[in-house]
Amino acid sequence: MQYHVDGFRPGDPDVLPAAAEHRRAGQPLPPTVDVLIAGSGPAGLCLAAQLARVPRIRTLLVEPKLGPMEKGQADGISVRSMEMFQAFGFAERVMREAVWINETTFWAPAAGAALARVARVQDVPDGVSEMPHVLINQARVHDFFLEVMRNAPTRLTPDYGLRVATLAIDPAAAEHPVTVTLEHTAPGREGQTSTVRANYVVGCDGARSNVRRAIGGALHGDAAHQAWGVMDVLAVTDFPDWRMKSFVRSRLEGTLMVLPREGGYLVRLYVELDQLGEHERVAERGLDAEDIIAKAQRILAPFTLEVKEVVWWSIYEIGHRLTDKFDDVPEDQVASRTPRVLLAGDACHTHSPKAGQGMNVSMGDTFNLGWKLISVLTGRAEPSLLHSYSGERRAAAKGLVEFDHRWSRVVGGQLADDAHDELPRVAREFVDNLPFTCGLTIQYEAGALNGPPEHQHLARGFPIGKRLHSAPVVRLADARPMQLGHCITVGARFTLFLFAPAGDVGAPAGVVAALCDWLEHDAASPLRRHGAEGEDVDAVVDVRAVFAQDFRALDFARMPTLLRPHVGRLGLCDYEKVFCADARRGEDIFEQRGIDRAAGCIVVVRPDQYVGHVLPLSPRGELTAYFGGILRQQGAGERRNAQPLSPRPGTPPRACS
Amino acid sequence: MQYHVDGFRPGDPDVLPAAAEHRRAGQPLPPTVDVLIAGSGPAGLCLAAQLARVPRIRTLLVEPKLGPMEKGQADGISVRSMEMFQAFGFAERVMREAVWINETTFWAPAAGAALARVARVQDVPDGVSEMPHVLINQARVHDFFLEVMRNAPTRLTPDYGLRVATLAIDPAAAEHPVTVTLEHTAPGREGQTSTVRANYVVGCDGARSNVRRAIGGALHGDAAHQAWGVMDVLAVTDFPDWRMKSFVRSRLEGTLMVLPREGGYLVRLYVELDQLGEHERVAERGLDAEDIIAKAQRILAPFTLEVKEVVWWSIYEIGHRLTDKFDDVPEDQVASRTPRVLLAGDACHTHSPKAGQGMNVSMGDTFNLGWKLISVLTGRAEPSLLHSYSGERRAAAKGLVEFDHRWSRVVGGQLADDAHDELPRVAREFVDNLPFTCGLTIQYEAGALNGPPEHQHLARGFPIGKRLHSAPVVRLADARPMQLGHCITVGARFTLFLFAPAGDVGAPAGVVAALCDWLEHDAASPLRRHGAEGEDVDAVVDVRAVFAQDFRALDFARMPTLLRPHVGRLGLCDYEKVFCADARRGEDIFEQRGIDRAAGCIVVVRPDQYVGHVLPLSPRGELTAYFGGILRQQGAGERRNAQPLSPRPGTPPRACS
Repeated sequence: MQYHVDGFRPGDPDVLPAAAEHRRAGQPLPPTVDVLIAGSGPAGLCLAAQLARVPRIRTLLVEPKLGPMEKGQADGISVRSMEMFQAFGFAERVMREAVWINETTFWAPAAGAALARVARVQDVPDGVSEMPHVLINQARVHDFFLEVMRNAPTRLTPDYGLRVATLAIDPAAAEHPVTVTLEHTAPGREGQTSTVRANYVVGCDGARSNVRRAIGGALHGDAAHQAWGVMDVLAVTDFPDWRMKSFVRSRLEGTLMVLPREGGYLVRLYVELDQLGEHERVAERGLDAEDIIAKAQRILAPFTLEVKEVVWWSIYEIGHRLTDKFDDVPEDQVASRTPRVLLAGDACHTHSPKAGQGMNVSMGDTFNLGWKLISVLTGRAEPSLLHSYSGERRAAAKGLVEFDHRWSRVVGGQLADDAHDELPRVAREFVDNLPFTCGLTIQYEAGALNGPPEHQHLARGFPIGKRLHSAPVVRLADARPMQLGHCITVGARFTLFLFAPAGDVGAPAGVVAALCDWLEHDAASPLRRHGAEGEDVDAVVDVRAVFAQDFRALDFARMPTLLRPHVGRLGLCDYEKVFCADARRGEDIFEQRGIDRAAGCIVVVRPDQYVGHVLPLSPRGELTAYFGGILRQQGAGERRNAQPLSPRPGTPPRACS
Repeated sequence: MQYHVDGFRPGDPDVLPAAAEHRRAGQPLPPTVDVLIAGSGPAGLCLAAQLARVPRIRTLLVEPKLGPMEKGQADGISVRSMEMFQAFGFAERVMREAVWINETTFWAPAAGAALARVARVQDVPDGVSEMPHVLINQARVHDFFLEVMRNAPTRLTPDYGLRVATLAIDPAAAEHPVTVTLEHTAPGREGQTSTVRANYVVGCDGARSNVRRAIGGALHGDAAHQAWGVMDVLAVTDFPDWRMKSFVRSRLEGTLMVLPREGGYLVRLYVELDQLGEHERVAERGLDAEDIIAKAQRILAPFTLEVKEVVWWSIYEIGHRLTDKFDDVPEDQVASRTPRVLLAGDACHTHSPKAGQGMNVSMGDTFNLGWKLISVLTGRAEPSLLHSYSGERRAAAKGLVEFDHRWSRVVGGQLADDAHDELPRVAREFVDNLPFTCGLTIQYEAGALNGPPEHQHLARGFPIGKRLHSAPVVRLADARPMQLGHCITVGARFTLFLFAPAGDVGAPAGVVAALCDWLEHDAASPLRRHGAEGEDVDAVVDVRAVFAQDFRALDFARMPTLLRPHVGRLGLCDYEKVFCADARRGEDIFEQRGIDRAAGCIVVVRPDQYVGHVLPLSPRGELTAYFGGILRQQGAGERRNAQPLSPRPGTPPRACS
């Protein structure tokens, strides 16, 4: 964590200095905003938390409910989401408070017993991430995002009791072209409406999204016509795997999933209820918590289950649906228009909750969108950058819906095909799916944001288009062992990791030093082309280097000036740009991530932690071209418009609309 | 973290349910309290945070300053203190926010240069603790304790603007025998006094303690007659080890220490100023921040130092002083009286700040005292238990003062003796002292609280009287890899770790099962003798077991009932009592801590994380005797008086005075 760069500030460093002229909680609705977010679920809050950190951006987050969520709904946090939480600064707190899923077991009739443990697998394969797979009440994830918002310069809070009813886009308007009609939902205010005009509207308003409907979108897909019950309980049982993730498939009563929850006592159960008729809706059955408990008891028999408290429950039917496009621009108008309305989360994809993906994919949507919106709104990128959002995230959602279709049928499937298998089919599929359920298989397609794979061989462990797979390093200046990926914090800044070839020890002769010199001074350098007048050299593209030597073999004073930049109001040196392989602990990042030791390489990481490009250390035109395809050039005239992207903790905001 | 045991509660699990009938901030001073704490430094706050968690105890914390601290003073957090913070629940936050000290370097004139790096050592030796050595503004440590207090059932907050002026003890009074006169310090209230009567008074009121004076105590010792400057700065320098802990000894100008600080930019400097005359006080010199900066620049030359902001500074002279006794009972009256007034922190020991020990030893004082006071105030122990405080902590403080005496003279010493040494004397001494400066050498003497070493050979890595050296294990019920020591949370509960002999797999035949059966049911068991009617079986002595097998080789259902107790209002099962060696990761606790694999053993851990005893699994009389020497037997009549010791997070307080 870096703070105090512009002078010492007492107190909690996560509480950033407040920007002036922002609307405070309880003040009347503003007539216009930069971004209106509909819905304060994980997608909406994840976006709001990113935008809230940029003093320049005025955001309105509306939520039909009358206050923050307290319980229920999603609970699974994939390792990928934990990596994202790390960038937001609350991963440690989630790790402390959540339950870790370490082992998954499978129970079925076997060896003469009604139920026996027929398989067990480690839940997260070794080495796929430095983060654990955890479960925690969705409400707590909301709380953490809300805290980021409260602590951000804009002090953003949701406006509860407001629903987006409809919206209209005026293609002729240059400013605030989207007119949004908001319905009040608080008792006594029902039927009242308000109007807000926005530059962008993001619909995170769930499966029945009004935002989606307003732009003519629809969810397409099918349903499994099968009812499931879900409940959070405090219960007493003699089932021994009550604190492991467990799949329990009875001979005649169907399937149940046990998901231990935070705090050591709470458990989430998914219970297969009944097959539905083709046109039947689950609500028609009139099922309730007692039905779920009774069915769970029958599936778990001969183990006993005594429910002491039902904390939350719901009954749902499995559906797998996807919308055609995540924004308001039809395919045939992409060349002539840029998006003004975007969709995220359940508003564009629905699926069963049983693979624990819902919250993760929804947050993944707006973690992809956040930096793009920030870049556009701060004048760093052209609005056309927003086209990439639908393309990248619809492909990810399609993968999810297809996976869920298959997986739901495996979990709810019949027993017959398990006969004589060493590992039951559900366990086999579970193992095969682990990289997917960990959130690690998404690979964005090659294009402007994700370079061609031409130089991928220089860093085989950092596939372009996939999330940066962090690895241990030692920071040169203070010898701190840490994760390389943890130097990326939430915002809209790109990172260039320069992996030095063996033998390079810095200036004056090294390849890294030569590249740094070019990056710092050449007119073709992305730092110069896209950085604004007067801002820190690392404001838009953050250059960091990783050397192959032990830290004791290197001299900080020989590092190129770009790697020890002087920043902030006081011009203090940033000592956190240079890292070394952690060979002493047997954790050599060059080895672990397949870096070409002779050549070294550049790994470009997008603000959302995805690898944007892998390039050799010498050819510079490709680097210029890559950033030129994403960011606007900041000419002398335009520099005045460029706004700070991501405030350093402790930096008083310099501009605010 | 365990919570929701008595039913689901939404929100932050660290915020415990408020107990009724406690004084709230801003209400008038109460006429009587259980404990009055003078001073809200690290010693006072560490004690208050422990007491605040017990609904039964009414505490008043007075502080002459008018509000919480913002900067300055101590900043070193030893690994031992980090272990303690872990029990309080805020170690993760400190680790995230603080700077980690990983490497210490030594600079001196060498090889023709005015300054060269002549030695470097890893700051914390491998394997001594799972925690890092960190530095952070003392004010932030205060903030974390204040948050624990605010979140505790009693919602305790300090009363600022009040100083203990004097106190009187009435030996004849059975209740609230200490009458304390408080002076108001707020502008406009100077000269006003208030009176509060207390059962116990703890003087954490610094080197000029009025509490100490009131009980006739004095600090004895000597001074080095040498002035040092200390300052926190934001500065620009070309000295390359600005983010390492560094000792810089110039040829003619004396010594300077660089201590990097939290946030990546701030640095603390200790600068040797001048030798003082024998009767001269440093204040007489009229030195200020400019003098410290100028001296630092001369010492660091030829490196440059440009100070951009002085955050805080002070000038002090080295003194090493210790008081005779840490309570009000003279040695010759120990048999006839029990302590009513106790001292902690700088009130009983002063020393130079340069070994980073001050805050740590002060918190260590009241971490030793807290559980004893709680045990006495809740009727679990006789007041004579409090005698052990002065004995244990005075020995620890004596070790510190002696160390500091030697170390100050090494750091401020002359250069001559370094000639021709491979490792300069200061570096050699530094390495030799690391276990001490890590806070790991304190060993409380054998006695009632610390058993005789007769069975120490059963667990050589858990020396009786020293803090429990945690090691990795896997929790059986959920396969979670974790630190064994982290299952101890702050409070007054003892822990019995049962290390199972090889081959023991639980009930019905195992040795551990037989011991658990005795512990659960036998009238001589400490659990039955010292537990109160109707309270959870683990309320006073928490029994946990560690098995030698991999977790997959054990069956949770075979664990003795004591190791899967049903607890709380709902009678839910606690699944967190059984652990296994983590052989798969090569971290076998039996190997690492020298446990006798054939015999197994019991390791008794005190509430303050110190090892109280090591015993074989079979002889039970020694166990009965050990606890009988500390805790009161809860007879049928007395059980009504016993109060909950440490609330589980989420447990509504059951009693409150």
